[in-house]
Amino acid sequence: MTRRYVNQLTNGDSVDEPFLVADKQLRANRQGNLYLHLELRDKTGSVGARLWNATEDLARTFEPGDFLHVRGKTQIFQGSIQIILTHLEVVDPSRIEPEEFLPQSSHNVGKLLARLREVLLAMSNPHLQAVVECFLIDDEFVRKFTTAPAGIKNHHAYQGGLLEHVVTLLNVADRITDLYPEIDRDLLLTGIFLHDVGKVDELSYDRAFAYTDEGQLVGHLIMGVEMLHEKVDRCAKLTGEPFPPELFLRLKHMIVSHHGSYEFGSPKLPMTLEAIALHYLDNLDAKIHTFGREIRDDPSRDSSWTPFQQSLGRRLYKGNLPANGAGDAGAEL
Amino acid sequence: MTRRYVNQLTNGDSVDEPFLVADKQLRANRQGNLYLHLELRDKTGSVGARLWNATEDLARTFEPGDFLHVRGKTQIFQGSIQIILTHLEVVDPSRIEPEEFLPQSSHNVGKLLARLREVLLAMSNPHLQAVVECFLIDDEFVRKFTTAPAGIKNHHAYQGGLLEHVVTLLNVADRITDLYPEIDRDLLLTGIFLHDVGKVDELSYDRAFAYTDEGQLVGHLIMGVEMLHEKVDRCAKLTGEPFPPELFLRLKHMIVSHHGSYEFGSPKLPMTLEAIALHYLDNLDAKIHTFGREIRDDPSRDSSWTPFQQSLGRRLYKGNLPANGAGDAGAEL
Amino acid sequence: MTRRYVNQLTNGDSVDEPFLVADKQLRANRQGNLYLHLELRDKTGSVGARLWNATEDLARTFEPGDFLHVRGKTQIFQGSIQIILTHLEVVDPSRIEPEEFLPQSSHNVGKLLARLREVLLAMSNPHLQAVVECFLIDDEFVRKFTTAPAGIKNHHAYQGGLLEHVVTLLNVADRITDLYPEIDRDLLLTGIFLHDVGKVDELSYDRAFAYTDEGQLVGHLIMGVEMLHEKVDRCAKLTGEPFPPELFLRLKHMIVSHHGSYEFGSPKLPMTLEAIALHYLDNLDAKIHTFGREIRDDPSRDSSWTPFQQSLGRRLYKGNLPANGAGDAGAEL
Amino acid sequence: MTRRYVNQLTNGDSVDEPFLVADKQLRANRQGNLYLHLELRDKTGSVGARLWNATEDLARTFEPGDFLHVRGKTQIFQGSIQIILTHLEVVDPSRIEPEEFLPQSSHNVGKLLARLREVLLAMSNPHLQAVVECFLIDDEFVRKFTTAPAGIKNHHAYQGGLLEHVVTLLNVADRITDLYPEIDRDLLLTGIFLHDVGKVDELSYDRAFAYTDEGQLVGHLIMGVEMLHEKVDRCAKLTGEPFPPELFLRLKHMIVSHHGSYEFGSPKLPMTLEAIALHYLDNLDAKIHTFGREIRDDPSRDSSWTPFQQSLGRRLYKGNLPANGAGDAGAEL
Amino acid sequence: MTRRYVNQLTNGDSVDEPFLVADKQLRANRQGNLYLHLELRDKTGSVGARLWNATEDLARTFEPGDFLHVRGKTQIFQGSIQIILTHLEVVDPSRIEPEEFLPQSSHNVGKLLARLREVLLAMSNPHLQAVVECFLIDDEFVRKFTTAPAGIKNHHAYQGGLLEHVVTLLNVADRITDLYPEIDRDLLLTGIFLHDVGKVDELSYDRAFAYTDEGQLVGHLIMGVEMLHEKVDRCAKLTGEPFPPELFLRLKHMIVSHHGSYEFGSPKLPMTLEAIALHYLDNLDAKIHTFGREIRDDPSRDSSWTPFQQSLGRRLYKGNLPANGAGDAGAEL
Amino acid sequence: MTRRYVNQLTNGDSVDEPFLVADKQLRANRQGNLYLHLELRDKTGSVGARLWNATEDLARTFEPGDFLHVRGKTQIFQGSIQIILTHLEVVDPSRIEPEEFLPQSSHNVGKLLARLREVLLAMSNPHLQAVVECFLIDDEFVRKFTTAPAGIKNHHAYQGGLLEHVVTLLNVADRITDLYPEIDRDLLLTGIFLHDVGKVDELSYDRAFAYTDEGQLVGHLIMGVEMLHEKVDRCAKLTGEPFPPELFLRLKHMIVSHHGSYEFGSPKLPMTLEAIALHYLDNLDAKIHTFGREIRDDPSRDSSWTPFQQSLGRRLYKGNLPANGAGDAGAEL
Repeated sequence: MTRRYVNQLTNGDSVDEPFLVADKQLRANRQGNLYLHLELRDKTGSVGARLWNATEDLARTFEPGDFLHVRGKTQIFQGSIQIILTHLEVVDPSRIEPEEFLPQSSHNVGKLLARLREVLLAMSNPHLQAVVECFLIDDEFVRKFTTAPAGIKNHHAYQGGLLEHVVTLLNVADRITDLYPEIDRDLLLTGIFLHDVGKVDELSYDRAFAYTDEGQLVGHLIMGVEMLHEKVDRCAKLTGEPFPPELFLRLKHMIVSHHGSYEFGSPKLPMTLEAIALHYLDNLDAKIHTFGREIRDDPSRDSSWTPFQQSLGRRLYKGNLPANGAGDAGAEL
Repeated sequence: MTRRYVNQLTNGDSVDEPFLVADKQLRANRQGNLYLHLELRDKTGSVGARLWNATEDLARTFEPGDFLHVRGKTQIFQGSIQIILTHLEVVDPSRIEPEEFLPQSSHNVGKLLARLREVLLAMSNPHLQAVVECFLIDDEFVRKFTTAPAGIKNHHAYQGGLLEHVVTLLNVADRITDLYPEIDRDLLLTGIFLHDVGKVDELSYDRAFAYTDEGQLVGHLIMGVEMLHEKVDRCAKLTGEPFPPELFLRLKHMIVSHHGSYEFGSPKLPMTLEAIALHYLDNLDAKIHTFGREIRDDPSRDSSWTPFQQSLGRRLYKGNLPANGAGDAGAEL
Repeated sequence: MTRRYVNQLTNGDSVDEPFLVADKQLRANRQGNLYLHLELRDKTGSVGARLWNATEDLARTFEPGDFLHVRGKTQIFQGSIQIILTHLEVVDPSRIEPEEFLPQSSHNVGKLLARLREVLLAMSNPHLQAVVECFLIDDEFVRKFTTAPAGIKNHHAYQGGLLEHVVTLLNVADRITDLYPEIDRDLLLTGIFLHDVGKVDELSYDRAFAYTDEGQLVGHLIMGVEMLHEKVDRCAKLTGEPFPPELFLRLKHMIVSHHGSYEFGSPKLPMTLEAIALHYLDNLDAKIHTFGREIRDDPSRDSSWTPFQQSLGRRLYKGNLPANGAGDAGAEL
Repeated sequence: MTRRYVNQLTNGDSVDEPFLVADKQLRANRQGNLYLHLELRDKTGSVGARLWNATEDLARTFEPGDFLHVRGKTQIFQGSIQIILTHLEVVDPSRIEPEEFLPQSSHNVGKLLARLREVLLAMSNPHLQAVVECFLIDDEFVRKFTTAPAGIKNHHAYQGGLLEHVVTLLNVADRITDLYPEIDRDLLLTGIFLHDVGKVDELSYDRAFAYTDEGQLVGHLIMGVEMLHEKVDRCAKLTGEPFPPELFLRLKHMIVSHHGSYEFGSPKLPMTLEAIALHYLDNLDAKIHTFGREIRDDPSRDSSWTPFQQSLGRRLYKGNLPANGAGDAGAEL
Repeated sequence: MTRRYVNQLTNGDSVDEPFLVADKQLRANRQGNLYLHLELRDKTGSVGARLWNATEDLARTFEPGDFLHVRGKTQIFQGSIQIILTHLEVVDPSRIEPEEFLPQSSHNVGKLLARLREVLLAMSNPHLQAVVECFLIDDEFVRKFTTAPAGIKNHHAYQGGLLEHVVTLLNVADRITDLYPEIDRDLLLTGIFLHDVGKVDELSYDRAFAYTDEGQLVGHLIMGVEMLHEKVDRCAKLTGEPFPPELFLRLKHMIVSHHGSYEFGSPKLPMTLEAIALHYLDNLDAKIHTFGREIRDDPSRDSSWTPFQQSLGRRLYKGNLPANGAGDAGAEL
Repeated sequence: MTRRYVNQLTNGDSVDEPFLVADKQLRANRQGNLYLHLELRDKTGSVGARLWNATEDLARTFEPGDFLHVRGKTQIFQGSIQIILTHLEVVDPSRIEPEEFLPQSSHNVGKLLARLREVLLAMSNPHLQAVVECFLIDDEFVRKFTTAPAGIKNHHAYQGGLLEHVVTLLNVADRITDLYPEIDRDLLLTGIFLHDVGKVDELSYDRAFAYTDEGQLVGHLIMGVEMLHEKVDRCAKLTGEPFPPELFLRLKHMIVSHHGSYEFGSPKLPMTLEAIALHYLDNLDAKIHTFGREIRDDPSRDSSWTPFQQSLGRRLYKGNLPANGAGDAGAEL
């Protein structure tokens, strides 16, 4: 029997399911009695929960990131569903499938990875092919690269999101580079693969999505350069051939400049054809993804507008045109 | 016999050719004697020219925009070629092929226009197809749209440049929209066609490239909306069917917001999927074109960098990698 | 008997009046019981209201924008007055005078309109006079122009506010243009009349103040140019005389540039004497109106400062000087 | 016999007149011979001049700011008139009328001062009237205030320009304050009088227009506050009555905030009605003056546009409409 | 017996102490019963307090800034400690030591003042020494200067904070000026002393920290110049010698420019060596103080990061390194 | 006999000296005759030079970066000294002391390096001491680090300038850290040493000062992180002990954030105490150095102001105060 997901809960439902604890607070009400306020989540979203008459001892038995099996009943509070808990019990994580509790790519990760290999390993530049292979034979890297989201809450903020973002970009580039013959196709494809590799360590994404300390203090641009540096060194050892310095320079430049301007954290502006192309393609994919999700996920049916999106500085227009397939599972990459 | 073009002149050449007068100044030297300083051009570039011992009467016989047949000899002055004139004579413009004297697209305009019709007339939305046809049956519009540059000096600054820019964008969109199924393909294609239509009257480009008064005071965003308004009205009359208001609104919004931010002169930020996609695709094509031209046209062989580009706020890296076909005539659109 | 207005309510009052529903929410309390939270308004302001033990069926009988006759009692909650409802009943809007329920200009709209005609129809430029008349003979336009506010919540945010703003500007210009003889007086007066005409369709203001879809996606600058375009065409047909192109251009430029800078949504900077004058006069009137209202309406008597005004980026100084007539009904325009 | 002014010189004229030396440079030509390059000026403008075969001894006999009687002949050099000198001789400044050599207001300074007294001394607030009188009985202040320009090169950059700017503002305020009854009329008038008083010492303007050291290091906003502080102290001593502290504060605030935003050097934003009104009126007058002068003084008859104005960030549109009195001597203040 | 301080309160404590009233609100609960909501403070922090079943009469017996002796019991409400009051009584402020109720410098004010005199009175420039003495013999000034905080809530926001900030800066300058021999040491030391003197009247700090009206409308930069102006005048009278004008100018410039850029409210950029050094030293001390306090005071032990600091635009990294004396009372100045 | 330096040349001097060629251009005059225009330099500055009647063959015998022995005579041209050459001859660089031809630190490099070792090797943190030693035992690194300038043209733009900048910062930090006990002294000292290490490869400085390709495309912040990464790896191998990860992170963060804000090219804002201290100390030293040089080097004796400094956005005030040792050779570090 499948679980009842967060996005399926309605007013008055009985709940008897495991959840990931996203947040935990012990509070006192006006009469001074303690209660627990939790934020519980599965892969479809998160929901508030309260346990009246809790004790400090109970509260110490688990932390955010742990799994709880809870029982209770839903009600609407201040316009949102919450669960009034009657029972909770810590669950051994080994009995849990973690992918049920964090948002997932709607695409098949195996197929995405196969497509990535297909595009990159068909490149004709042997140096670039070699350095990509040095990444792809590193199993730990591949595990992270296929699990990481592309961000905490903006575009592609789900497990596998980074891979999905990169494969979409590779597909776009694959189709259009012949329209721009001055672009070095292999350089652009490799730059697309590398531009966000630093995110595999900038973010933590096993139990919840967050920045690591290194992610906040150093950032994925510089972390990506460090990772490339290491792989290029290894590559040179493996092949016995030095990696061409200008090629190395151009790859580092693409990583370092791909945010496009100082205000978005790039210490250098794009100064090569491939760097400027990478910057605009990256933005194109990220923004189409963000706009699409905001419009699709907006629950209100009364307004032709989404609420104001702080990070975009605007509301988005949903309009009233007949849907054109937007409800499908998405494009086949 | 073909003419000797400006970009073929070297020190000490004899010149005996017609040119377009781009600028004219009558000056006096230290001894008080008058001389003419001209800027002459053909489709490959412009060159300074001087006629010593000129008279005011002679200077009055022609204006910038006229054609002169000149004779003289080249020399280097302050690092540049100039022509010391011995003779000049006004030429009847009817005996001139104007396309020889302004920069031209390297693509065949007829083929570009055919490709534009092919993509747009294959759209399935009848309203969008109808409004596009209303533009394309307007011969005066088509003449301007296929002649106009996309800009005075930045990207695609040559006759036919606007059409080339639009057709490249249509080709890019044609290839990638199935990767983004939430995008309304016909809406995006029509928006690409319309986004710069105002430029046909914002710029003047018959004898030289300049802004019209209306171009400077009102701008191509608003002029494009006015043109669309007129065609939509005509379209409704021709078809006897009202144009769907939301569709009209979405088209106007794409024109008005395609510069993407207030600081670049858009009075509205993009608020629909198609508007944001248009904005990034437009920038992608314009910047690849600009970077490519700056790198390709830079005459210096001593430096791996172009000079500082004021409008880009940076120098561009040319590097030393073997060229990869950059010298070809460009992509086949 | 006159109604008891929102701004007259005090703690413990009995209420038995019709109101406009500005917002409606059905919520559950901690015990899971449903209650209605409403925002009710009349022309003097808005007030929160609660009906305990509501049902979904009751909640479905009306929507924001409808009128309710309510009974109940006021109390103070978290520092503000709210009404605890005991009864509510939907009222047929035909039995309601809508001007009682939206904020109104304190000026007589008829007099304002007469003054507008007086100033504009005394202009000596026949073309400008003709185009103004084309607007003023359009009854639907006049109805909207005399009803619209000048904004949703900033300056002149009440019915008739747009007209009041325009008439004040006409009066200011009427008195000072002879101090600036280089200004074309008729052009400035016509520009003042036209600068915000797009607002009549950018905003909706019959039951509540909001932006229309077109208002958000296109904006009143471009909508104003479209309206002017249509009237100029009609004008030319009516008079049989073409409208002078430069005059048309100067009017469009004034509309398009009147926000004065890119960051405030003008796609063009003011480039004529009349456009720059319009920009500063418009700001002068709007800011004096805003400062005056904030200082006058601030209810606190304990502080010589208003609260921080987000949209102004500052607090305003009320000081302790004796009032100088600020409590009067306002200037006679 | 009146002098031949700089703006009357044409090619080939003989010159035999006194001028103010605005700049002096001793240079060597390619043959190593020394020559003098001067910039000479009178109240209508400035002109370049050269004396071939000059000596260091001759060059030491005068400095910028001195007056020279010169003889020579005009010619056109690189598009501009210059004078080839045959003779020069230092002139005793006591034999010179300095107002012939610096740009002057086209208005009668005596009349302007009378109008200023008329408006300000009719105020009903005795404290404000008293502090204004303290300024006006200070003869040295009045001499400076009626001589100073309002700026080095932007608006009202001529002797008497500051007074003209202030009187125009007083006239504008005088006519419109009854439209804004919440404005304290006397406070606004006094603020207009005071806002730029610091300029009398921020600038030097006896022989040439420049910033003083104090002007550059401290600026007219703070210098104006210091001057007001001194006059308020004197005023209190003369009248035996303390100046009301809040009134003093409001005046200081108007001076300190009148540039309107931090980026234009105001350490405080306007926070009172009178301060915000002062800011916009000041800008209105300055910008109308600047636009009018740029359009009127542009010598080119070929273009409907002025050259690009760096300080305005734009070109201005002159157009082709029939002049409407712009050639007159200006408004009667 | 010492009092129980706010930062020592835990859940369930009995309270029987005097506090300063920082805020007072009379509210009604859902049943319409009135209760008092207070913010009470002592020198270690502030705490919320409620008195159920209050009356308007009781609420009128005291105001924010008064002292209350209260009895009650603490409980946790929404994650924070609050006091449920059973009794409150107004206390005569003459029986209170005010330094117990506002945050205090952890340094000995007498020692700080002695150190300030020591450094400044050892200067060799007699004019600068004289003007400093004119400040230090003004007892009222010294009382304020040693009591004022350096800010409302940012760095050194406690009584004596201004003095502590200035003395630290003097110590830093004292130690490093010999590394920069081009800096005029006495000028820098005097500038450090003067740069924030305006704060003694910009802020009020006897019962609570706030801006005065003059502080908000004019600001401490200009107020500091006015104070210096007065002391320089007095100084000249006392010594019978005029104060050197350039020295006066350089001091005023340092005060006026020490915020370093327009956007931070400096009307002039630093243009002398001593002004630029003052700007960076001032920022260095303020930012080290702010970072240190945020990291030290952050109560959370679970995270290696502070919460997001709005005024700094970032979170700060606390890390996990062993503390290096950060818990001590601070440096011995 | 010592050479005659560029800064000693006056009008009419005979010249017979070797120079470094900084720039070379072959031009034609109006008669079509070729001449060479050179920029020649030694350690005190650069000077223009012309050789009339040059040939292309002669011009090909040398390039910028080569040394020439020239003979000729100085004259003033357009206000500057230039040399009219009569003879030139390429010089074998092995016979040249390069330090005579590029600007040099006025400090003894050996002493500076000794002081650097003294401060850094006295640190008590063994990990930090070890990583510093890994840099200092790398002779090639030390050679570059003691030769590199700190910049191309702003502060410390001479050979040894980088070392001088770092040693001054170490001295400042050494003296003041005990005033800020919360700062980790060893971390700050190591961060000072590391912050600009990337400059040793970002710049080229053997024959002229320029950016390397990697310097322009990647920049010294990221290059510094790469260098640190390599040394930390080596350090761990040498010591057999892993470098503490948090310490590594804090060092990388200091390098990456030391420009302090995005607009100055830092991809991260300073988020630790030591990072913010480094940022302000770095700026303090750089700006004092820049201001001091601009004021000291300004040749004009007529003005109390330097010319406008583009990179600073201001003029600097030199004033008329008696010099206080500014002419000395500088501080003893």
